[in-house]
Amino acid sequence: MIKDQSVASFLDNLASSASTPGGGSAAAIMGAMGAALTSMVCNLTVGKKNYAEVEDDMQAAVKKTEQLRAELVEMIKADVDAFNKVMAAYGMPKESDEQKAERADAIQQGLKEATDVPLACASLCRDVIDISEEVARKGNKNVISDSGVSVLAAHAGLKSAALNVYINVGGIKDSDFVKDRLGQLEQLLEGSDAKTESIYQLVKERL
Amino acid sequence: MIKDQSVASFLDNLASSASTPGGGSAAAIMGAMGAALTSMVCNLTVGKKNYAEVEDDMQAAVKKTEQLRAELVEMIKADVDAFNKVMAAYGMPKESDEQKAERADAIQQGLKEATDVPLACASLCRDVIDISEEVARKGNKNVISDSGVSVLAAHAGLKSAALNVYINVGGIKDSDFVKDRLGQLEQLLEGSDAKTESIYQLVKERL
Repeated sequence: MIKDQSVASFLDNLASSASTPGGGSAAAIMGAMGAALTSMVCNLTVGKKNYAEVEDDMQAAVKKTEQLRAELVEMIKADVDAFNKVMAAYGMPKESDEQKAERADAIQQGLKEATDVPLACASLCRDVIDISEEVARKGNKNVISDSGVSVLAAHAGLKSAALNVYINVGGIKDSDFVKDRLGQLEQLLEGSDAKTESIYQLVKERL
Repeated sequence: MIKDQSVASFLDNLASSASTPGGGSAAAIMGAMGAALTSMVCNLTVGKKNYAEVEDDMQAAVKKTEQLRAELVEMIKADVDAFNKVMAAYGMPKESDEQKAERADAIQQGLKEATDVPLACASLCRDVIDISEEVARKGNKNVISDSGVSVLAAHAGLKSAALNVYINVGGIKDSDFVKDRLGQLEQLLEGSDAKTESIYQLVKERL
């Protein structure tokens, strides 16, 4: 599993001409790094006398970011699995009409899954951005730059996952499905650039 | 070494209340993922008949991104080392006037190094952005979303590294040094938001 590979090996595999891991796994890792860094800021805020009044907020936030991180780590593999499923479908026999129909169905099913996985990744990344805002505002000033890196990583993860949604819907014939998923994605992206920039500026001011 | 840790362990350590690894190492990893993904697009473009006319450009680009990736991987550890050096300086004895002066010097030296490391990381990330533009324009259309993820990752790495420069110059008394490094940083940041957005749009159009 990718999560068990060393950081250096993962990077080697990412750079190689193998199709996986690719941008989808990188998106999930960026989201997971974003979640981890907000967890770190929370962990370095709880129990500190000067931050006693935000203790409960930080405890609640770290619970959420640790859950998000666990789900994002799962996405690293889910992205590879979805990609492999599409590739396997393209490799199915296409001699008889029945085989052709089965293959076409499997491709469509695979592409839908390969759309829903990055869409779920995008949703998790957006949640990281939203939580990181509160932590950047209230968390321990000494590590607040890590809140800034958190939101930058999650934002890059969100927009990267979005690219993987766009690329896969291109081949899907079920126009209701495509419309629905693109609608969901637009909602996740909405305001995310501005929010990320405003958290970045907030962090710069608190440095 | 962090690069030898598994992806999952690295994320656990990032989330923990230990001060390292932190945002500086995450910035370097994002830059390295950006470099790796542009390498991947190059590797999946060279040798393809349809892309014969950009073969030389892709060969040249992957040489650069692989060099940048190697340097960015070194930055993961360099960031931790620089942080530890500052912490060690703060921990030096401060009884006598001589000790106080030695400690103050060591802190200043440490902070300068802890500024120059993320500045170098920012520079490498900017190089990744600049190279990814050409690859996004000319590389294999089938994996072009990976070029988009590449630039998003490198851009998040650049801005994350910038935060680590800002936080460290705050404690440096040598105003010429501070002015010089902030000037270098502003040059690296200049136009990077717009360039990243334009590469993202280019990729979306080529999807």
